[in-house]
Amino acid sequence: MPATPLRNVVTWDRADPRAARHAIRSGGYTGYTAAIAAGYVQANICILPRDWSADFLLYCQRNPRPCPLIARSDVGDPRLPTLAADLDIRTDVPRYHIFRDGEFVEEVMDITRYWRDDLVTFALGCSFSFEEAMLEAGLRLKFLEKNSVAGVYVTNVDTVEAGPFRGPLLVTMRAFKPTDAIRAIQITSRFPNVHGAPVHIGDPAAIGVDLSKRYQDVGDGDVAEGEMPVFWACGLTPQLAVKNAKPPLCITHAPSSMLITDLRNASLAVL
Amino acid sequence: MPATPLRNVVTWDRADPRAARHAIRSGGYTGYTAAIAAGYVQANICILPRDWSADFLLYCQRNPRPCPLIARSDVGDPRLPTLAADLDIRTDVPRYHIFRDGEFVEEVMDITRYWRDDLVTFALGCSFSFEEAMLEAGLRLKFLEKNSVAGVYVTNVDTVEAGPFRGPLLVTMRAFKPTDAIRAIQITSRFPNVHGAPVHIGDPAAIGVDLSKRYQDVGDGDVAEGEMPVFWACGLTPQLAVKNAKPPLCITHAPSSMLITDLRNASLAVL
Repeated sequence: MPATPLRNVVTWDRADPRAARHAIRSGGYTGYTAAIAAGYVQANICILPRDWSADFLLYCQRNPRPCPLIARSDVGDPRLPTLAADLDIRTDVPRYHIFRDGEFVEEVMDITRYWRDDLVTFALGCSFSFEEAMLEAGLRLKFLEKNSVAGVYVTNVDTVEAGPFRGPLLVTMRAFKPTDAIRAIQITSRFPNVHGAPVHIGDPAAIGVDLSKRYQDVGDGDVAEGEMPVFWACGLTPQLAVKNAKPPLCITHAPSSMLITDLRNASLAVL
Repeated sequence: MPATPLRNVVTWDRADPRAARHAIRSGGYTGYTAAIAAGYVQANICILPRDWSADFLLYCQRNPRPCPLIARSDVGDPRLPTLAADLDIRTDVPRYHIFRDGEFVEEVMDITRYWRDDLVTFALGCSFSFEEAMLEAGLRLKFLEKNSVAGVYVTNVDTVEAGPFRGPLLVTMRAFKPTDAIRAIQITSRFPNVHGAPVHIGDPAAIGVDLSKRYQDVGDGDVAEGEMPVFWACGLTPQLAVKNAKPPLCITHAPSSMLITDLRNASLAVL
């Protein structure tokens, strides 16, 4: 027996999205989801009271690149059957962040005790899907080799507001040689439901970004000699808009600990 | 009556490719073809003796981005029936350049007296086709507003040689704001038969280009504040390769005076 307790003692098939959700549901996995269930769509989660849900839906409609909506639950229903038949949003995300009046309250592994009959779940596409397509095309994502994620930045570009939801566009940055940047634009253009094509390439200052100042220190901001930064709309954008809207309750996934679905990444490609 | 003779006295429908070819055939038009028969494919032309044609075909196959072959004639046959039923390559290009042993000899309006039973015509796609698609998408091509064409540059990138045909890659440069550059990449990716996606974006020096030094002063090299240069493989690349190969005879179109075909630009789009 090991001298210290192991965090992930349950054995399960990391290639299987259903097995991953069951491990997460039982408390057997609480980490990042990047390397789990390769090939399957992972989603950003935002849960709001019904009274706030119509404006948030409109915010997603008006800002499809940072907020590519792939599912919305019925009111009070913890299921998302179009993403997976057995999915229960109260237990199937590794870690959740609880916000009250826009302020972070706590991180939890299960939101059963927070669940209410008026809650609505929004699932938004995540760039993990197109990163897989980039890797399959032979592009190098150096931040993955460092066990990191793409650097996240706040821009000086405003999203289109909807009711109380407003705020700046957040972006992820990936650095490429120019020919690979062109290829990355082609590949991600095929995935409009997971942020799609870049929103900017080249000079970070043109969108108000200083590469040394990452949002909440998330991800990797390195750009090597001969590389150019390429920027995609980021799924953390709606989290800032929710912070500004200050709903009495909001529940999100913890960064990089996403909801794993049964949808294939390839099923999101439009071409 | 005007005091000085007019160059183009024949009246014809500039929207009709067949009418344009007939005007050119009769000597009624000898100018640039950019604004003529909008919507129809125009082609770069290279005519070589049969003994040089197999290597040139291989050169095109090995360098599809600068040399996107859309038709090759039968030996000694001046027709290109897949491009237009009535087309006669001896008369249907506004101006031709004659090269002997790789050296420019003269510019002529008609090559009937140069024609031989062993000549083979190669027609290569031209970026006019994707420029039209860019304009339709609302992108601005400022050089067109100056009645110019995209700036042409010699790079430090070698093409893949085939027999005696070798030389550097030539590129055209178009300047865009970053969001329009992304859109331009998407649009031109749909047209692999007319150079396709860019070969480079950003720093010109990375491909050995100094924007102030255009090839034979062709086109416009302006990049405004906030714009980035985007580079596409150029149909003048094979002309330099032919210059290096020094065939006893080679006939090309004069720059920007292309062969007008009956093919629709939209027919070249793969998506």
